[in-house]
Amino acid sequence: MSHAGEPVPIDGETGLILFLGHPTAQAGSPQRLNPKLRAAGRNWVVVPVDVPPEDVDAAFDGIATVRNLVGLIVTVPHKVWALGRCDALTPVAEAVGAVNVIRSENGRWLGDMLDGRGCLAALRARGHEVEGRSALLVGAGGAGSAIADALAGAGLRRLRVHDLERTRASALIDRLHRHHPACDARAGAPDPPGHDLVINGTPLGMRDGDPLPLDPERLEAPQVVVDVIPKPEITPLLAAAEARGCAIQPGTAMLDGQMDLMVDFFTRRR
Amino acid sequence: MSHAGEPVPIDGETGLILFLGHPTAQAGSPQRLNPKLRAAGRNWVVVPVDVPPEDVDAAFDGIATVRNLVGLIVTVPHKVWALGRCDALTPVAEAVGAVNVIRSENGRWLGDMLDGRGCLAALRARGHEVEGRSALLVGAGGAGSAIADALAGAGLRRLRVHDLERTRASALIDRLHRHHPACDARAGAPDPPGHDLVINGTPLGMRDGDPLPLDPERLEAPQVVVDVIPKPEITPLLAAAEARGCAIQPGTAMLDGQMDLMVDFFTRRR
Repeated sequence: MSHAGEPVPIDGETGLILFLGHPTAQAGSPQRLNPKLRAAGRNWVVVPVDVPPEDVDAAFDGIATVRNLVGLIVTVPHKVWALGRCDALTPVAEAVGAVNVIRSENGRWLGDMLDGRGCLAALRARGHEVEGRSALLVGAGGAGSAIADALAGAGLRRLRVHDLERTRASALIDRLHRHHPACDARAGAPDPPGHDLVINGTPLGMRDGDPLPLDPERLEAPQVVVDVIPKPEITPLLAAAEARGCAIQPGTAMLDGQMDLMVDFFTRRR
Repeated sequence: MSHAGEPVPIDGETGLILFLGHPTAQAGSPQRLNPKLRAAGRNWVVVPVDVPPEDVDAAFDGIATVRNLVGLIVTVPHKVWALGRCDALTPVAEAVGAVNVIRSENGRWLGDMLDGRGCLAALRARGHEVEGRSALLVGAGGAGSAIADALAGAGLRRLRVHDLERTRASALIDRLHRHHPACDARAGAPDPPGHDLVINGTPLGMRDGDPLPLDPERLEAPQVVVDVIPKPEITPLLAAAEARGCAIQPGTAMLDGQMDLMVDFFTRRR
């Protein structure tokens, strides 16, 4: 099924923003961002570029030669790799250890990570408080780490992190302690009770037959259950949460929440 | 000035056709081709990729890794280079020694050259006969050679070729003798009288102050004067020809004439 976005005009002077991932079929950014770039008066277009991990360095070497390149949006599974190709990082990207947007800055590649601020913007747009609250994060990869950083920066009181790779969880917690010492961040069990926010930062739920990242029987209203997976929009976890009366926020909301941040990044307003 | 083409929708499943040139600002293909691809039911988009000659091999190495790549349209100055990156060539591309479209064929790169058939299609669309006629071609480079091949294949009776590099003219004539023995093809003076068609295949007329490729005082109605230069659309040669009552065909018509051929090439109808 094709979710055709708003149409955009393209000519020989159009600048390119490459949406780099593998696969890219699930992408929501091109159809969301293209109308906003046009509204900002830019003759730029976002197009998907599907490159597998084994080829992504050669792809980047080629991409770097393109004179009408405006920048890149980087998605799964390249967000950590992309950090290694940047010459400079924003403090958030450095703290998270991953980037999802790159632009050229005087011939050097500058990387930033907007997933966390996108998730935070979406939570606020839906009226969910973060300051003073407690959150459970399952999955301390790029997206999960970015969300943890943004929520801790917004005054989250307590965070429990679960990741099957324990070193990944502890690395995130160490970074949070350095950057956001007021947030009580520790490793914890993937058990929802006692938390206001429950966040799935794993890819579980993307494919049919995936196990759930946590036991949905342990969810209860008025918890807010957040998923980072954009497709399917309603993951099995979110469906179970909704059935149990919880508020839910799909991965598409995290994308929607960062579209304006992306426009600002590529137009150098930030 | 931006010549914004018809808008096209783009999402994560959109396939890419890269318009590779240097520069690309003058390109007409994206805005011409995108609506036709959509009309053909394809979720594909043509975007410009501006890469200078010193970087084009690295660019191609990267482009070759992109899973949602449909193919490339190759323009100045990369048409001869591109032939060297193909694994297979159509007979026309091989005869001409240049390619302007490339697609992947079972993991191998197939190159074709559509400029000649584009010019022929434009002549026919304007009601100009080719079969049994005589033509003068000045300039036996890629575009001129492609046109000579297409016209000879369409039943041109007589062709006279002029090129300051005599070996280039004789190489073209040798190829025409092999592929189209019925056409009386020889080297000749750049002198229009006696010809039905007069074709400029040189770049003369692209820049202010260029000398004319032939003496316009020797043109006369009802000759048809064809130029390969797309910008300016009306070259000094075409302006002089029009003033003398000749029919004219600009280089943009050669592009328009091959848009349907490009759709056929990328959709594998040919």
